[in-house]
Amino acid sequence: MELVKKMLAGSQQPLARLITMVEREAPEVPEIMRQVYPHTGKAYCIGVTGPPGAGKSTLVDKLTSGFRKKGLSVGIIAVDPTSPFSGGAVLGDRIRMQQHYLDSGVFIRSMATRGSHGGLPKTAKAVVKLLDAFGKDIIIVETVGVGQTELDIMEAADTTVVVLVPEAGDAIQTMKAGLMEIAHIMVVNKADREGADYLVCELEAMVRMGPKRSDWLIPVLATQAAFDVGIDALMQEIEHHRVYLKTSGELEQRRCEQRKSEFIEIVEQRIKERLLNLVENDGRMSASVLRVKSGDIDPYSAAQEILENRELLREWLGKM
Amino acid sequence: MELVKKMLAGSQQPLARLITMVEREAPEVPEIMRQVYPHTGKAYCIGVTGPPGAGKSTLVDKLTSGFRKKGLSVGIIAVDPTSPFSGGAVLGDRIRMQQHYLDSGVFIRSMATRGSHGGLPKTAKAVVKLLDAFGKDIIIVETVGVGQTELDIMEAADTTVVVLVPEAGDAIQTMKAGLMEIAHIMVVNKADREGADYLVCELEAMVRMGPKRSDWLIPVLATQAAFDVGIDALMQEIEHHRVYLKTSGELEQRRCEQRKSEFIEIVEQRIKERLLNLVENDGRMSASVLRVKSGDIDPYSAAQEILENRELLREWLGKM
Repeated sequence: MELVKKMLAGSQQPLARLITMVEREAPEVPEIMRQVYPHTGKAYCIGVTGPPGAGKSTLVDKLTSGFRKKGLSVGIIAVDPTSPFSGGAVLGDRIRMQQHYLDSGVFIRSMATRGSHGGLPKTAKAVVKLLDAFGKDIIIVETVGVGQTELDIMEAADTTVVVLVPEAGDAIQTMKAGLMEIAHIMVVNKADREGADYLVCELEAMVRMGPKRSDWLIPVLATQAAFDVGIDALMQEIEHHRVYLKTSGELEQRRCEQRKSEFIEIVEQRIKERLLNLVENDGRMSASVLRVKSGDIDPYSAAQEILENRELLREWLGKM
Repeated sequence: MELVKKMLAGSQQPLARLITMVEREAPEVPEIMRQVYPHTGKAYCIGVTGPPGAGKSTLVDKLTSGFRKKGLSVGIIAVDPTSPFSGGAVLGDRIRMQQHYLDSGVFIRSMATRGSHGGLPKTAKAVVKLLDAFGKDIIIVETVGVGQTELDIMEAADTTVVVLVPEAGDAIQTMKAGLMEIAHIMVVNKADREGADYLVCELEAMVRMGPKRSDWLIPVLATQAAFDVGIDALMQEIEHHRVYLKTSGELEQRRCEQRKSEFIEIVEQRIKERLLNLVENDGRMSASVLRVKSGDIDPYSAAQEILENRELLREWLGKM
């Protein structure tokens, strides 16, 4: 595919177009991904998540500057749980990133979760693959860690950084558990504010008392991203975690599992597409749908009818 | 099924057991739902969502008292985005509900979103069906509206109440859009606090300026749930919305669509289960998985191989 070749040769515009195709679930996506796949596996992916207002974008901004100083290229995927209806916060975040827009070593892309109904984690993972194949050394995925969909995106990350702020207090309480499960590094940002020391202590206690998922002990760092305080320490911890993943064999093991679940997801997704196509275009399937809609038959009985009709299923497969 | 019969006869213990079976995705679930289905459609389902700390539980508590006074029975499904690892907030919420635990006209059930990876909306909807068949007049689904998964649950609700608080301010900013799309009624709770009037104005402006989804104009109410202020007005608006849905035909139309998507979801889900079963138990499928895991073949090419092998698919269907 011409577009993929141009992208692999280092051209940004084809990259942007491929990402758009992935987002829109264009029919060419499987073929694109097939061609891209052999060129992936070199990038290191960092996830940055936390509640709204934690200063994630500023932190990503500073990390990006840090990696650029080391001569590494950076791809950023910013996932916003918003719709065009609001947008204020997003715009603000993007303005903060402005300096990097002029740097050809940095590629920034925003994606929205709204309306994706669980499909976004898959799309985001595919975009990570594209940036990887494009040759970015570091890929940063930034999401507002406010729900399961957003947290699922973090499966793509090698190192996940969870960012909290002192004042979020109560609001965080209910999220802390979920964030804890995915964190490799915890950051208390805006550490000059009241309650920061206490939150650091509390998180350290949680790390010590919580169930251990591996030999990696989650470090808790205090930062003031806006003033460049603690960024070097954070970069060091990211590097420690990278080395840990590599030497312990966890990195390879996780990538194996990622490939497996990717495979299963793709097969599922395609069968699902074929099914939806049948609902629209096959007479007998449409008839079932109509009976269900009118309440003549309950959805469970109708599903059973269809799934037990091997003759029908075989015929459909022929058409698929 | 004996358990379903007992539940339909009004016994609470079988209801609780059936809910557990639905949560654990027991193999009997399709049969349970088939038997339950003809007894559903009478309950009215109210969704209550908003950010953590908005006072949703207190509001649900007061609404429950209000409906009880009218002689209506109430079922409550409280969905928490938490794991056993934290739990503080949840316990507090449940204590607030305590009075209703002693009332046989109220049934309360908590469910957790963590680890459900998008499966929860389906489970929650099935539990709504169980409570409906059990004979509850009103079903209240309470969720922390913090992400797509949580918002998807609201598809089960006839009337969705979005609860906000003045001080949430910035944190809400990013969520407002999403909440706006699902709200039928907006509530500013803790309305005695600073900024409440401003938030009410702001929301009213958003409602007026936002895209209209129907003839229903979203009312914005101020409440102080803890002091029983504004609850009557909220109950009135819920009733207005119920009448609107009924007379406009929207209620019937939405239930038709719900049945349709339920049907498609069930077929998808079952095909998915069969597929996962094949991954574990079919030699050729396992071989593909191994090749994918080791990186011999990329997930997309492997998926294509399988989906193009009609012979193999037919054989599998025979085994399904």
